[in-house]
Amino acid sequence: MNRIEKIQKELPSYHVDALYLSSPRDIFYLTGLAISKGALVIFPSAASLIVDGRYFEACRATAGVPVLLDKEVTLGTFFKKAPKIGFDSGVETVAALQKLQSSVPSAEWIALSKPCGKLRAIKEPQEIEKIEKACRLCQAGFEFLLTQIQEGVAEEELALRLEIFWLQKGGESAFEPIIAAGKNSAFPHARAGKTPLRRNEPVVIDIGVRLDHYNSDMTRTVFYGTPDPEIVKIAKIVQEAHQEAALSAVPGISAYELDGVARTVIEEEGYGQYFSHNLGHGVGLDVHEEPFLKHDPLSRDTILEPGMVITIEPGIYIPGLGGVRIEDTYVIEDKGARSLFTISQKPLEIV
Amino acid sequence: MNRIEKIQKELPSYHVDALYLSSPRDIFYLTGLAISKGALVIFPSAASLIVDGRYFEACRATAGVPVLLDKEVTLGTFFKKAPKIGFDSGVETVAALQKLQSSVPSAEWIALSKPCGKLRAIKEPQEIEKIEKACRLCQAGFEFLLTQIQEGVAEEELALRLEIFWLQKGGESAFEPIIAAGKNSAFPHARAGKTPLRRNEPVVIDIGVRLDHYNSDMTRTVFYGTPDPEIVKIAKIVQEAHQEAALSAVPGISAYELDGVARTVIEEEGYGQYFSHNLGHGVGLDVHEEPFLKHDPLSRDTILEPGMVITIEPGIYIPGLGGVRIEDTYVIEDKGARSLFTISQKPLEIV
Repeated sequence: MNRIEKIQKELPSYHVDALYLSSPRDIFYLTGLAISKGALVIFPSAASLIVDGRYFEACRATAGVPVLLDKEVTLGTFFKKAPKIGFDSGVETVAALQKLQSSVPSAEWIALSKPCGKLRAIKEPQEIEKIEKACRLCQAGFEFLLTQIQEGVAEEELALRLEIFWLQKGGESAFEPIIAAGKNSAFPHARAGKTPLRRNEPVVIDIGVRLDHYNSDMTRTVFYGTPDPEIVKIAKIVQEAHQEAALSAVPGISAYELDGVARTVIEEEGYGQYFSHNLGHGVGLDVHEEPFLKHDPLSRDTILEPGMVITIEPGIYIPGLGGVRIEDTYVIEDKGARSLFTISQKPLEIV
Repeated sequence: MNRIEKIQKELPSYHVDALYLSSPRDIFYLTGLAISKGALVIFPSAASLIVDGRYFEACRATAGVPVLLDKEVTLGTFFKKAPKIGFDSGVETVAALQKLQSSVPSAEWIALSKPCGKLRAIKEPQEIEKIEKACRLCQAGFEFLLTQIQEGVAEEELALRLEIFWLQKGGESAFEPIIAAGKNSAFPHARAGKTPLRRNEPVVIDIGVRLDHYNSDMTRTVFYGTPDPEIVKIAKIVQEAHQEAALSAVPGISAYELDGVARTVIEEEGYGQYFSHNLGHGVGLDVHEEPFLKHDPLSRDTILEPGMVITIEPGIYIPGLGGVRIEDTYVIEDKGARSLFTISQKPLEIV
């Protein structure tokens, strides 16, 4: 059963007669076509891709589904046998929905939450292989970065060298690298800026590379010299929280429980208020995708399954002092979580 | 009057008591803060930025407006004196609106089309200066690319070298460079792929760089050797269409008329069906922003004004043969359009 057939099988559970998908990643997942704009329409036993003039010729040459030119499609006629059309409410803007509703006023447009999310969350073996390759390139980038650390080099200069390293090897940075030195490490989403590396400070390095459409994501905290004893202390706590969570990441556990495993370790050490974000997220065609491992009771319904690829990334951030985060990308297998990175999680002390 | 005051002045014309803005570019434009997620709320004589724990400390340190931590804000209370709240219907997803509506059920949420678009479309002198700098770096990148053209080099290899060139100079590619050789040039949005450059073929090079938050955008078609006579012919037509449009791009003309100026030149030569996209778009913090120069009668209401920065980019694309596009970024001044590029539009013949 191919991916389009799998999503077709889901239509009855969504209580819709057709599905209108416009997320470029969903379209790539279902058709293999990398386009920035278009709509894939899924009927119970058919599917069509609607694109504009920019993409028509290129898509028609390679698509496995019929390709229609948008200006030649009258949506009202196209959907005349579909009284209920589902769409991704996290993708369509209010303006896009208004336009769809006025094009097909006869239909009821049903808001669905990530209709492809569950399918995309469980990776096929060839997808896991691609993510593993991305993780290997990510790790090579991290190891390259370690050779570049020296007194006075600016965070943004390190980020630049890393981006070039990856580009030369066929990848591209999956997000703006976070390289946060000293007090900046207390900001979980610091941008790499002009701050120079100074001795005896922690450096949080949160990086990811996209290779052949698939992403990777990792974070290590490097000690450049000997940081404040409290930083050393929280690093141990974060590492323990991470390892406890990784051991608990087995099929059947909920995202909420898993977040709780790491959070409890940090809370029991008295740093609960300083773990100011969620435990992790799925990784695949999007660097952040289903399943989300949220500190939110609603995540009780998000259950880990074999084939999921997730990050585990607890952190402790103390304003004015600094922070520590440790993150790996894992694939969930029958017996537990397998890390796709092989670098020690213990903060590397660079002398 | 600062930018927030300018948008406050617009509230009555939108018939709202408050404006809820979550586009990162709008937030940057109005506050100078580069964050990937957050909401800026504009009241008639106040404004607040709401962010999550990742950004709270960093924003509080530099924002010119009060910064609130999202989990400490009860939106229902926050908006209790705002019965009508405007939002950008092209930014908020259906899911985001549903969440806002359930958080503030007492309010009427009013869909607005790009409430900051008109303000952002007219650039301040310091913004034009930044766009000019981005265009200069873009042009330097194009000139660098010309030195890299040789038989057999793949499109994607050229794109990579260009991206590295820009990164080393402090910029970053504003979009995936389009380097389309031979028949690929017939696809207006071709991706740079594995196709090698071959002699006697056209190469469409559509590139842009972002520097200090502002974008640039240009396209040239290079003749590597001597292409098919029809390609040479359409290149002349595209250049004429471009120049006619550039001469007509004066304050007061509508986007629809301007598109028509270029389109008429191409239609009169019998190639109308092969100009399959719009004439151009605004350039600023987004590489595609207001004003859009659309081949759409609704664009009669889009009037060029001094301070706008736009692209003019007509093209002719003949499937199976190849295509030509010529694009410059212009600033609209009192007396007409001034190009921010100084490279000849005539296809450069590289021997």
